[in-house]
Amino acid sequence: MLFAVRMDVAIPADLDPEVRQETIAREKAYSQELQRGGEWKSIWRIVGKYSNISIFDVESTDRLHEILWGLPLFEYMDVDVTPLAQHPSAIQQD
Amino acid sequence: MLFAVRMDVAIPADLDPEVRQETIAREKAYSQELQRGGEWKSIWRIVGKYSNISIFDVESTDRLHEILWGLPLFEYMDVDVTPLAQHPSAIQQD
Amino acid sequence: MLFAVRMDVAIPADLDPEVRQETIAREKAYSQELQRGGEWKSIWRIVGKYSNISIFDVESTDRLHEILWGLPLFEYMDVDVTPLAQHPSAIQQD
Amino acid sequence: MLFAVRMDVAIPADLDPEVRQETIAREKAYSQELQRGGEWKSIWRIVGKYSNISIFDVESTDRLHEILWGLPLFEYMDVDVTPLAQHPSAIQQD
Amino acid sequence: MLFAVRMDVAIPADLDPEVRQETIAREKAYSQELQRGGEWKSIWRIVGKYSNISIFDVESTDRLHEILWGLPLFEYMDVDVTPLAQHPSAIQQD
Amino acid sequence: MLFAVRMDVAIPADLDPEVRQETIAREKAYSQELQRGGEWKSIWRIVGKYSNISIFDVESTDRLHEILWGLPLFEYMDVDVTPLAQHPSAIQQD
Amino acid sequence: MLFAVRMDVAIPADLDPEVRQETIAREKAYSQELQRGGEWKSIWRIVGKYSNISIFDVESTDRLHEILWGLPLFEYMDVDVTPLAQHPSAIQQD
Amino acid sequence: MLFAVRMDVAIPADLDPEVRQETIAREKAYSQELQRGGEWKSIWRIVGKYSNISIFDVESTDRLHEILWGLPLFEYMDVDVTPLAQHPSAIQQD
Amino acid sequence: MLFAVRMDVAIPADLDPEVRQETIAREKAYSQELQRGGEWKSIWRIVGKYSNISIFDVESTDRLHEILWGLPLFEYMDVDVTPLAQHPSAIQQD
Amino acid sequence: MLFAVRMDVAIPADLDPEVRQETIAREKAYSQELQRGGEWKSIWRIVGKYSNISIFDVESTDRLHEILWGLPLFEYMDVDVTPLAQHPSAIQQD
Repeated sequence: MLFAVRMDVAIPADLDPEVRQETIAREKAYSQELQRGGEWKSIWRIVGKYSNISIFDVESTDRLHEILWGLPLFEYMDVDVTPLAQHPSAIQQD
Repeated sequence: MLFAVRMDVAIPADLDPEVRQETIAREKAYSQELQRGGEWKSIWRIVGKYSNISIFDVESTDRLHEILWGLPLFEYMDVDVTPLAQHPSAIQQD
Repeated sequence: MLFAVRMDVAIPADLDPEVRQETIAREKAYSQELQRGGEWKSIWRIVGKYSNISIFDVESTDRLHEILWGLPLFEYMDVDVTPLAQHPSAIQQD
Repeated sequence: MLFAVRMDVAIPADLDPEVRQETIAREKAYSQELQRGGEWKSIWRIVGKYSNISIFDVESTDRLHEILWGLPLFEYMDVDVTPLAQHPSAIQQD
Repeated sequence: MLFAVRMDVAIPADLDPEVRQETIAREKAYSQELQRGGEWKSIWRIVGKYSNISIFDVESTDRLHEILWGLPLFEYMDVDVTPLAQHPSAIQQD
Repeated sequence: MLFAVRMDVAIPADLDPEVRQETIAREKAYSQELQRGGEWKSIWRIVGKYSNISIFDVESTDRLHEILWGLPLFEYMDVDVTPLAQHPSAIQQD
Repeated sequence: MLFAVRMDVAIPADLDPEVRQETIAREKAYSQELQRGGEWKSIWRIVGKYSNISIFDVESTDRLHEILWGLPLFEYMDVDVTPLAQHPSAIQQD
Repeated sequence: MLFAVRMDVAIPADLDPEVRQETIAREKAYSQELQRGGEWKSIWRIVGKYSNISIFDVESTDRLHEILWGLPLFEYMDVDVTPLAQHPSAIQQD
Repeated sequence: MLFAVRMDVAIPADLDPEVRQETIAREKAYSQELQRGGEWKSIWRIVGKYSNISIFDVESTDRLHEILWGLPLFEYMDVDVTPLAQHPSAIQQD
Repeated sequence: MLFAVRMDVAIPADLDPEVRQETIAREKAYSQELQRGGEWKSIWRIVGKYSNISIFDVESTDRLHEILWGLPLFEYMDVDVTPLAQHPSAIQQD
């Protein structure tokens, strides 16, 4: 089941640089593990913003929330979730 | 080069039903040809709306505009284009 | 799996009164059948508006879109879908 | 009498962690007591956000304000209240 | 129980002038009866707009919806309802 | 001459608790004196928010600004002023 | 007593051209009379829009509403009223 | 003196096709003459929209309004004007 | 050449009171000098807000930016500039 | 390939003045080098705001993001990117 998720990140300027770096590293590892697992299907950077558009393929809304809530950068994020369905013109089955 | 494009469709209620059906059919054929050609990489229906989120892979902004301007349903659409870039966490190269 | 859905209805003033009445009747029957089936868990009128807030319990986003797209009043509606998850404070399991 | 209430929580990042934890615990207890009492009928987590949608069944607007104003997390919340009424299609009496 | 209600009226320019006049007359009579009955406590014109701010004192949200839904001009209105409670500084009991 | 005024209060979380309490007390006294004087005709709490809707009856816009600018909580407020006029349906003369 | 008023005009494209021209002429005469009378102190065109910003000097909000409601183009306008007061830096007394 | 101007065009679907084509042709000629004259410095299409961003170099705001008000497509446009000034980092003098 | 400028001021609550007072005094002197010089034609307080609407008469957009950028309170301001032109109904030449 | 980019800058008031000045100097040098290189084609100041509108001519969206992400003031910016295409009325080829 697919969801498009936009994440806008705003890390406070006065956050301890080490905490910042370490959190960003954990975020990357967390994301890459989910990408390898297949739930985090795609992630693209939005040009000019500390933001991304991602496509998730998950079994339930609870699972999606668990993933997003667990993001190391979650507390610095504004997250917008758009549920997706199969498009009648799509030549690929999702 | 990737772009996320959201298309919200609002076909006037008083459009001749045959024109409506014919235009929608042309839209589907137009989209599927571009999907097969690889420029229209993905298209998903937004749940509950006559809208889609699509990912395009095109060689220039002019080409993308040419494609969008040529959509049979274009005059009934509100189109929003978000330029994308490679995300540092992405495990796949775009 | 739960979704909150807000539906704002705007039926054109110049719609044929019989078509209007018949469509509204079909909408009611359509909704009540889904309520009896358990997928349409709750529907409340928003005070002062031709709108409702509903809670759906469906197996997938595709199914939810199928239900919403099939609403007799769909073409006169603005629909907004909010995916829900179990709340840690909820004493009832969804 | 029913109200839909959306609560968006934004706890300052620099709040003392113990105060944070203790306040969240009190919030959970406060909510669960009202749920057992029947005034707080439902509470769902909005996927991807530190937010919930709740349904309250209260005797008056003053009572609803008293409940919301008393939330331990109130000062960190943006609260939006939507009054609800019986929907003509609802098969259950509220 | 008090509610503040804002009503923005937009009557289609091409409405039959007689229907327009007759509907506005019914609206006035409908409002004045409710004012005399005490449920419609106050109604003020917003300067420069075909809009009003009103204060209603009703026994339930269902009753308020019944009143608003019954407004002769309802189909031409955008209605916004704000539930009110007793203010701790108010020297008059509502 | 009537004005509807909405006041949304946001007191910084790190304000000295004593200053906070003393300012709120002064705000209450300030408001009640103006209510007794008749210029501050009504004040209601907006359910779920640290906000109020008030009705003022003042002799000029300068006087209204003087009152609002003098509110002890003014620097923590977002204030919105809507000028009102006599409504043709009102059974009471303002 | 001063008010800033913004008027955005949107005359339906299908209005009878003669009615359009005659209404615009009446609007101009109506405005110029009020300008000569001193109530309509200033009127400027907003560059690129069928809109104006005006300054009114009137004795009451009721009078201002009477003027605006009487504008020949009123039904095609979106009007926004901002009450003004003497600014402490102004070297001219209003 | 420079202004950035965004023009969003929405030509009614039911406009006579000949009138539409003729107006668009006049718009093109009108624009190209001003471009050759140097007042209309640049015009770019916004990808995916019937819109443009243009840069004008004019001697006054009145002149800019005269140009925009004279656009053949003006009545079908939403126009937004942003006044520009020399940027301290610009290596070219405007 | 005329511009309407709205300035919304938000001075941080924790600014040193002396710096605050001294800056406000400089702002007043700066404004009054420009008013005497004729470039700052009018300044009015917006009722209920730490904001003003001003009318400027300047020779160029660069000059207007120079004036606004030089405001002692500029860094605490949100400034919105609307270019004005002569209105066809105005009885006074700007 | 052209993009219009709007940058709104908000440097925290409590940033060390030396860091502020040094960062602004690096921003200017960074921009001017890209202007000389031809990728940053134009930059204009928006009157009354710490903002600019710029036109970029870049080979890809990835390159544009690289440029914007590398701006010394990036963390204090809100950046909005609008992809541009050749306009059919433009007399110059982009």
